[in-house]
Amino acid sequence: MARALELARRGRFTASPNPAVGCVIVKKDQLVGQDLLIGEGFHRQAGGPHAEVFALRQAGSAAKGATAYVTLEPCAHTGRTPPCAQALIDAGVARVVVASLDANPQVSGKGIAMLQAAGIDAESGLMAVEAEAINAGFMQRMRSGVPLVTVKLAASLDGRTALANGQSKWITGAAARRDVQRHRALSCAILSGADTVLVDNASLNVRWSELPESVQAQYGEYMLPGSLSNSLPNSLPDSLSDSLANKSSTEPPASEPQSQLRQPLRVIIDTRNRLTPDLKLFSLPGPILLLRDHATSEFNEQVEECVLPLTEAGKLDLQALMVELGKRQINQLWVEAGAQLCGALLQAQLVDELVLYQAPKLMGNGARGLFNFASFTAMEQVINLQWQDVRQVGEDIKLTARIVRANC
Amino acid sequence: MARALELARRGRFTASPNPAVGCVIVKKDQLVGQDLLIGEGFHRQAGGPHAEVFALRQAGSAAKGATAYVTLEPCAHTGRTPPCAQALIDAGVARVVVASLDANPQVSGKGIAMLQAAGIDAESGLMAVEAEAINAGFMQRMRSGVPLVTVKLAASLDGRTALANGQSKWITGAAARRDVQRHRALSCAILSGADTVLVDNASLNVRWSELPESVQAQYGEYMLPGSLSNSLPNSLPDSLSDSLANKSSTEPPASEPQSQLRQPLRVIIDTRNRLTPDLKLFSLPGPILLLRDHATSEFNEQVEECVLPLTEAGKLDLQALMVELGKRQINQLWVEAGAQLCGALLQAQLVDELVLYQAPKLMGNGARGLFNFASFTAMEQVINLQWQDVRQVGEDIKLTARIVRANC
Repeated sequence: MARALELARRGRFTASPNPAVGCVIVKKDQLVGQDLLIGEGFHRQAGGPHAEVFALRQAGSAAKGATAYVTLEPCAHTGRTPPCAQALIDAGVARVVVASLDANPQVSGKGIAMLQAAGIDAESGLMAVEAEAINAGFMQRMRSGVPLVTVKLAASLDGRTALANGQSKWITGAAARRDVQRHRALSCAILSGADTVLVDNASLNVRWSELPESVQAQYGEYMLPGSLSNSLPNSLPDSLSDSLANKSSTEPPASEPQSQLRQPLRVIIDTRNRLTPDLKLFSLPGPILLLRDHATSEFNEQVEECVLPLTEAGKLDLQALMVELGKRQINQLWVEAGAQLCGALLQAQLVDELVLYQAPKLMGNGARGLFNFASFTAMEQVINLQWQDVRQVGEDIKLTARIVRANC
Repeated sequence: MARALELARRGRFTASPNPAVGCVIVKKDQLVGQDLLIGEGFHRQAGGPHAEVFALRQAGSAAKGATAYVTLEPCAHTGRTPPCAQALIDAGVARVVVASLDANPQVSGKGIAMLQAAGIDAESGLMAVEAEAINAGFMQRMRSGVPLVTVKLAASLDGRTALANGQSKWITGAAARRDVQRHRALSCAILSGADTVLVDNASLNVRWSELPESVQAQYGEYMLPGSLSNSLPNSLPDSLSDSLANKSSTEPPASEPQSQLRQPLRVIIDTRNRLTPDLKLFSLPGPILLLRDHATSEFNEQVEECVLPLTEAGKLDLQALMVELGKRQINQLWVEAGAQLCGALLQAQLVDELVLYQAPKLMGNGARGLFNFASFTAMEQVINLQWQDVRQVGEDIKLTARIVRANC
């Protein structure tokens, strides 16, 4: 199962909106008396084969009587691909060990039930915590309908994001900015506000040259010309199924990695219709969703304008936005925004997690702070966090914390 | 030497204004062919015997031909006690290994020279970095004349110390507050402002019941009734010299630990003479230095009123304050103050180190920030830090950082 989880993680950059899943098939060798690996695979891309299919193809007829380890419950329904539970049954697998049950109400428990009905010894729960963590966003969307929301912040040690005059380049170091690129690449969508886009002329995309080397290595090892672009057809070349872990050892390395990256949906709140097509954002590949006062036809086809309800204060209804993003199959939302939007998201209790890069700097109380929201009047009102992780990233310290919801 | 450093650390809570020093004497046993420990000791209190004296007393005549390991260069001058270098010579020690040379220009190198002149094999440098760290404040005062200044801060993750209405109890947890008690106990003086004293009716003292258990254990193991109070006579009971590491195993445990704590000097800036004798601060044992507009005679004898020059802006000259504290043999100054004083110290480049306890909380931009000083207008002006340590203390995260001085 540990190997299956390792495989699953290799799909995290590209499987969106699907969960990342890994599968390993083993069979006892009668001569040696030990379990031998006869097939493995992971789910690389929505519409492409699931992890189990890759593993079964590789195992071939040897799958009969074998044991399959899968990180997520095999699907029992026909989506863009046939149900994997049926594929396991058809291959004659004797035993299936599942890490976590699917959180999707459409399939949860049904995959296991289908396998058991066919006489297969099927169980779940092994390393379930690790498996859920790989697909935390997917799990949350399946359960609640809205994405897992992570707010990214970069500040000095005294909690300041920019000087009073707006200067902020650069508070954090290059390593932290590379780490941000990794988070963008792992996310289904990036949320920001028109201010951030206008002030910084921000791109909010994933840039191959700025990804950490470890991510480049992981991404690059299964890149094929065109295979990861957003215009990919709904199936993978057959050659891929021939080798371990979906990798084709005979293909030359990718020539243009940047064009093969999955670009997360860029979601920009622009309820005053201030953004114009000349901004850098619109010249870069990848889909964009603009939340606007009214739709115009000034943008190219990669841009979708969407009008959502406003609150009484004339602000975008952020809860409605999250529901909309959930409908659009956004599992993991990465927020890079200013104090206004970050504060509003916090106040609306829509934030699940914070990632704060703290630079070894002090900027003083005249500089800009992290979160604008109505002042608290009692200590009981403050927002509580639960530390998840603290580590050094280059010269900065990265703190990850979960928001403790008041109503939980 | 590692054992000698361990011994030295046991004097850190009480040796002020002297450095903490440890000494170990070993001698090769002719029968076993190995070095045997024949004496050890540490410097516990100014005016009391130095580490070498304790170790030599214990070794007795066996010290002849032995090797002494000392964490700080033995003194060559007569202070309140005779020179230790002479004591080592008189005892017939054959070899002396010193960790760090004394930073005090009065003695640096002279101890080694005196030993060598007497034909002793004397060298320095072994574990010198560790030895200097134990006495960082003493070293700094000897070199620059001013104390090592550590500013303590407690804030939410977004850098807020109190709500807009001033409420701040409690941002950090009990473990962090206990850790603050440990730092107070290690410091020669605590600096604060009249506002902090007036708003919180702060005590700014060391409280036995709030010290971490590890400190209580270290402190308590050599407590004797009355022996650590500020009124202690300038020598220690002879019984102490009989046992290892200055500890008398025959004495009963201390009955009133609180009264035996060394209380750091409390230094309060009160240039508008706002503090009155009824404040809690003045009812607790331990010396107090008030920086005032003019001296009055309203306080008891534990309080000294001092008038220092003001700047053109009518504020206390903080540089002059540090020089004054240096003259008063303050090695390590611990600052617990508000955004105004902390900001002014930073701006005056008088801060060496920050200790920030970060609570897992968010308070928003309406809450109060950490440092008031004139706003920077360019990123090159921001104050740079160098991380020293990051650790979890109870539910909070403790960050220690050195200030990178602009002129260094």
